[in-house]
Amino acid sequence: MKLSTRNRLPGTVTEVVKDEVVAKVTLQVGDNHVVALITRESCDELGLEEGQRANALVKATDVMVLTDEGVA
Amino acid sequence: MKLSTRNRLPGTVTEVVKDEVVAKVTLQVGDNHVVALITRESCDELGLEEGQRANALVKATDVMVLTDEGVA
Amino acid sequence: MKLSTRNRLPGTVTEVVKDEVVAKVTLQVGDNHVVALITRESCDELGLEEGQRANALVKATDVMVLTDEGVA
Amino acid sequence: MKLSTRNRLPGTVTEVVKDEVVAKVTLQVGDNHVVALITRESCDELGLEEGQRANALVKATDVMVLTDEGVA
Amino acid sequence: MKLSTRNRLPGTVTEVVKDEVVAKVTLQVGDNHVVALITRESCDELGLEEGQRANALVKATDVMVLTDEGVA
Amino acid sequence: MKLSTRNRLPGTVTEVVKDEVVAKVTLQVGDNHVVALITRESCDELGLEEGQRANALVKATDVMVLTDEGVA
Repeated sequence: MKLSTRNRLPGTVTEVVKDEVVAKVTLQVGDNHVVALITRESCDELGLEEGQRANALVKATDVMVLTDEGVA
Repeated sequence: MKLSTRNRLPGTVTEVVKDEVVAKVTLQVGDNHVVALITRESCDELGLEEGQRANALVKATDVMVLTDEGVA
Repeated sequence: MKLSTRNRLPGTVTEVVKDEVVAKVTLQVGDNHVVALITRESCDELGLEEGQRANALVKATDVMVLTDEGVA
Repeated sequence: MKLSTRNRLPGTVTEVVKDEVVAKVTLQVGDNHVVALITRESCDELGLEEGQRANALVKATDVMVLTDEGVA
Repeated sequence: MKLSTRNRLPGTVTEVVKDEVVAKVTLQVGDNHVVALITRESCDELGLEEGQRANALVKATDVMVLTDEGVA
Repeated sequence: MKLSTRNRLPGTVTEVVKDEVVAKVTLQVGDNHVVALITRESCDELGLEEGQRANALVKATDVMVLTDEGVA
């Protein structure tokens, strides 16, 4: 299986919060937290829970760039 | 300035490729590469170039989750 | 701080509706209403409430174009 | 025709820049500029050109919120 | 009305699940199921319910490609 | 490998158009055409070409709904 999606960040699930329709999944990726908002359905199907290994996946068109120096 | 965007990954620009309309910016974020597809205009305004410190920014609704075990 | 995101629309928060995981924030931007769906977590951290000044931020890759004349 | 997309911002096309695959379309919407990155194919089919009336369309899940006060 | 959005998939609504802020709408499109996460507000305005004809609409920048052969 | 992404539409590549930074890939999915805008890099890595079997993949948060009856 080969995926066009450029960004695959391996990490560990640190928190799962579920509503009826959506779920918020937080991963620890290196020194950063990465938050994913996915459907509750996906979350249940993948059986996501704290401590599990998982990857955050992001399409390149959805990544913005922020520089710290200067003024917006 | 406070931003609702959940995911801010600090890194270093390792490559910039520009077309007339869009630019592809690659950052080294910890052990991972993160690729951003932004407008050429943004890329020029931020003066992005190799070796520069910059953050990849991603809205939580744009993050998917992939687990390695099992079968899709 | 400089952001690659092209579209920053200054306005005023007119409504905030919160679920456990997500929040819907409506802004008045000039003559238009702009609706943002963000995490509940972001909404709380920014302390968004009616009457507050805030900007809607949109990546250029997420903007579509609709013309009124003709037939789709 | 009824569309679920929450945000429809009426304006006027002020610039069109085309590459072979993508096009950047800038609209004047009230006091703001709104930039859309769409396929070249769409741009040609809609016949977008300077001075034309058009709407910027954005799904609520793609809108972020930025407040000017405080520190990120 | 002409829309830049490339992908319009005609189908039938097979399920609607609503939370206070968001709704999950499932459509049968040919042999496939297509799931949309939209605001509850949109869902109510369009009066979406099982059995209704509707189109799934997706911007080309939001489509990824997955090939089954090989290893990612 | 298990993916949270809800929408996987199996089809056949019918056209590939490449720029230096991005590529437009068209798939035939049942009776519909689906257009994906991905990085040129992804397109080359997956070796996408006409006649190849491939899936269009779309996150549920990126799907909108359009009904044909009534007026927007």
